[in-house]
Amino acid sequence: MARIVQKYGGTSVGDVDRIKNVAARIKAVREAGNELVVVVSARAGVTNELIARAKAVCENPSEREMDQLLAIGEQETIALTAMALHGIGVEAMSYTGAQAGIFTDQVHTKAKIKMIHAHALEKDLRAGKVIIVAGFQGMGPDGQTTTLGRGGSDLTAIALAAAIKADKCEIYTDVDGVYTADPRVVKDARKLSEISYDEMLELASLGSKVMQSRSVEFAAKYNVVFEVRSSFNTNPGTIVKQEVAYMEKVVVRGVAVDKDQAKIVISNIVDKPGSAAKVFKGLANAHINVDMIVQNVGRQGIANLTFTVPQTESAKAIKALGPILKETGGDVTVDEKIAKLSVVGVGMRTHSGVAATLFQALADAGINLELISTSEIKISVVIQTDRADEAARLAHKAFDLDKL
Amino acid sequence: MARIVQKYGGTSVGDVDRIKNVAARIKAVREAGNELVVVVSARAGVTNELIARAKAVCENPSEREMDQLLAIGEQETIALTAMALHGIGVEAMSYTGAQAGIFTDQVHTKAKIKMIHAHALEKDLRAGKVIIVAGFQGMGPDGQTTTLGRGGSDLTAIALAAAIKADKCEIYTDVDGVYTADPRVVKDARKLSEISYDEMLELASLGSKVMQSRSVEFAAKYNVVFEVRSSFNTNPGTIVKQEVAYMEKVVVRGVAVDKDQAKIVISNIVDKPGSAAKVFKGLANAHINVDMIVQNVGRQGIANLTFTVPQTESAKAIKALGPILKETGGDVTVDEKIAKLSVVGVGMRTHSGVAATLFQALADAGINLELISTSEIKISVVIQTDRADEAARLAHKAFDLDKL
Repeated sequence: MARIVQKYGGTSVGDVDRIKNVAARIKAVREAGNELVVVVSARAGVTNELIARAKAVCENPSEREMDQLLAIGEQETIALTAMALHGIGVEAMSYTGAQAGIFTDQVHTKAKIKMIHAHALEKDLRAGKVIIVAGFQGMGPDGQTTTLGRGGSDLTAIALAAAIKADKCEIYTDVDGVYTADPRVVKDARKLSEISYDEMLELASLGSKVMQSRSVEFAAKYNVVFEVRSSFNTNPGTIVKQEVAYMEKVVVRGVAVDKDQAKIVISNIVDKPGSAAKVFKGLANAHINVDMIVQNVGRQGIANLTFTVPQTESAKAIKALGPILKETGGDVTVDEKIAKLSVVGVGMRTHSGVAATLFQALADAGINLELISTSEIKISVVIQTDRADEAARLAHKAFDLDKL
Repeated sequence: MARIVQKYGGTSVGDVDRIKNVAARIKAVREAGNELVVVVSARAGVTNELIARAKAVCENPSEREMDQLLAIGEQETIALTAMALHGIGVEAMSYTGAQAGIFTDQVHTKAKIKMIHAHALEKDLRAGKVIIVAGFQGMGPDGQTTTLGRGGSDLTAIALAAAIKADKCEIYTDVDGVYTADPRVVKDARKLSEISYDEMLELASLGSKVMQSRSVEFAAKYNVVFEVRSSFNTNPGTIVKQEVAYMEKVVVRGVAVDKDQAKIVISNIVDKPGSAAKVFKGLANAHINVDMIVQNVGRQGIANLTFTVPQTESAKAIKALGPILKETGGDVTVDEKIAKLSVVGVGMRTHSGVAATLFQALADAGINLELISTSEIKISVVIQTDRADEAARLAHKAFDLDKL
């Protein structure tokens, strides 16, 4: 007997039949004698429906009211999931975020969990009931409804697992787990049986869209071991946990490609102290996330400053740079046809030659590297988008990721 | 400047355009300098949609989960109404039942309001914000979501008006107010400018479907004066308030017809003490609402016992009577083709001859009275359904209700 938190995403509870399917899975786990808390998302599509209705009454809806509105998506699925369990003879009770005691700050649409008072929920849990909790939502300091932003339901599950000291936390999604590369691109990509928080974080932030970074960060902070697996089959998934020594034997854990970035080059900027600071302060003030940054100092105090931003923010970035470049000098060009390829692995800390292997593999295929950036457990390169899939396959092969 | 509570029903907020229409009405009242709390229902039809989804996952959904599910209907309209107000430059904040501090008992699907802690809401109200409150819902003792049952949004509005000591309470609906008779049946029916709680209660319980009895009872208990009016025009409605002396000048305030009753006759029952008690105790145990009761003692200790029940419960009533009649003797017949016609007015207390006038009007037209029952301010007769509309017109005329 174990205490288990499970989370089912919007696709898993997308319609009546899928809700019944989830209920049947829950029943099996409960009848094996486990205590069970289940976090569910809104059914896929409902959030967009609600946003469309909001836009129809008001061009620019307030975030407070948006949270009040969006929270009904999960409130529907918790009730329906509890009912589906009753229908097959399993005792279950639904809890909204507020009812589950999930207290957040008051930053609407992207609230942070401050604390969880799970005593009411735990009482029902100990009484043998399956607890169904609305993901993605909480209660702000004045009792208002808040939502946790993208990936919020995963965060709810991981935070609850920490709060009730669960033995296991299972994140059910529409993929089987975390792969060495995107299986749609690299056909011999393998599912990983386990991965460290750090590796998962690098992959999450690199466009391997299994989970949002902050859920993984939260899990790492509270040492919540969780498993990413599919709700449509019974295959074992990928276990995400604290790094352990044997993990370092594998140099590269996976290859990720992010095609949603844009490269911005400021050429001929005056290379004096403070120029770069002005540029990035201006971008930060405009709330633009800058990712990779490279500066080459050229001839006679003239430098080139290159960085990447999300494609969706490139226009905003150019606008923000306008007044700054009047001071610092420099010409801006934007390239949206780029991709970032990264190889990730905690083994890099103790192995050398990883960069050389990657660069050689790409060079042999004539793929040009436009930017390079490295961290302790990651090497990223920016290349042209049209070579990105090919590059992923080459890197996957170069590090023998197709072999067990 | 006044403090006003308004309530808009499901038809009034039935779609985006109607919500915008309601927002425009609210804006006008707010800009006239009034403080405003607005209670809204779920949009018409959404409750049935949700019930259908519940039935699709579970044949017999639990009442707790049904409340959790149904509460999202109003949560949607409060957010959309607040947004529509923002869209036209009016500051507004939405409150769920729980956020508005509406505490109930734990009787799911028909909870009673126990108390209202309106301090959070009042703070925003005094700050000049329009407060939008979800009708029909509250919070039970353990924080669970409860709903108040049929007509619950009216109850929310009246209870809030009492709690915040509102100067006015306006119940907006799809009818113009309370009429002397159903205008679809009696073409010269007049809208009443005012009516007493007691008269409204008799009309509410008699099938004049403007409001549920318990909202009127609550208003009477806390002396909340309210107005029933239409959200589709600006006509003055009907003010419902404590009876005052001049109201008694009008002998009959209105005529109501209820076609949803069935007449049950038990003939040849043994007339000894306890027979009737056995019959009605059996019906009560089966949770059947008995309305009119008449007993005629006939020859040699044999009596006929006649009563009416809601048509939907007549089959259940016959079933419940089975074992009892084995003891008491008697034969049962059911007539579902009956209607109850009632005339209501506080003036009856001080005027005589009302019954005679009614009976004569119906007798002149050859309409047979099958049952008669009277209270202090009401006379009801049971007649055949096919004469009911005609009878309503005759009664309306007999009491000069078409004249001011």
